[in-house]
Amino acid sequence: MKATVVVRPKQGILDPQGDAVQRSLAKLGFDVSTARVGRVIDLDLAADDADDARSAVEKMCANLLANPLIESFEIHVDDS
Amino acid sequence: MKATVVVRPKQGILDPQGDAVQRSLAKLGFDVSTARVGRVIDLDLAADDADDARSAVEKMCANLLANPLIESFEIHVDDS
Repeated sequence: MKATVVVRPKQGILDPQGDAVQRSLAKLGFDVSTARVGRVIDLDLAADDADDARSAVEKMCANLLANPLIESFEIHVDDS
Repeated sequence: MKATVVVRPKQGILDPQGDAVQRSLAKLGFDVSTARVGRVIDLDLAADDADDARSAVEKMCANLLANPLIESFEIHVDDS
């Protein structure tokens, strides 16, 4: 089964990479006031059904994929 | 206007970060056969309408946000 995790810096948390992107875009002439950079992780995993997959991916996020202190995450399971 | 860019390594392109994530997840006991890691960039930009925003973000991708040789990107414009 395929699942996608989107990990973003939480609101209010400093994002130096995003700030650098915003400054670079501004220097190139783009009118961008904010940029925030996160990660997207596409997974191929063995799971009985979508609920099972979601529950496994939640554990992966807690254990490895995201830092819950400073990052939020969304899980999308493709059960097609 | 808000826009989100999702940048992923193209199919067939080596993704060492994804491979490291897959190995770490497997070591933690998760049954994951593939992991691919990309970036998500949330932008706040000045634009007249959604078409204008999309066109600007396409230029940003070509100029800074993605490497078209090895990465593909998707643009989502939130015109609400």
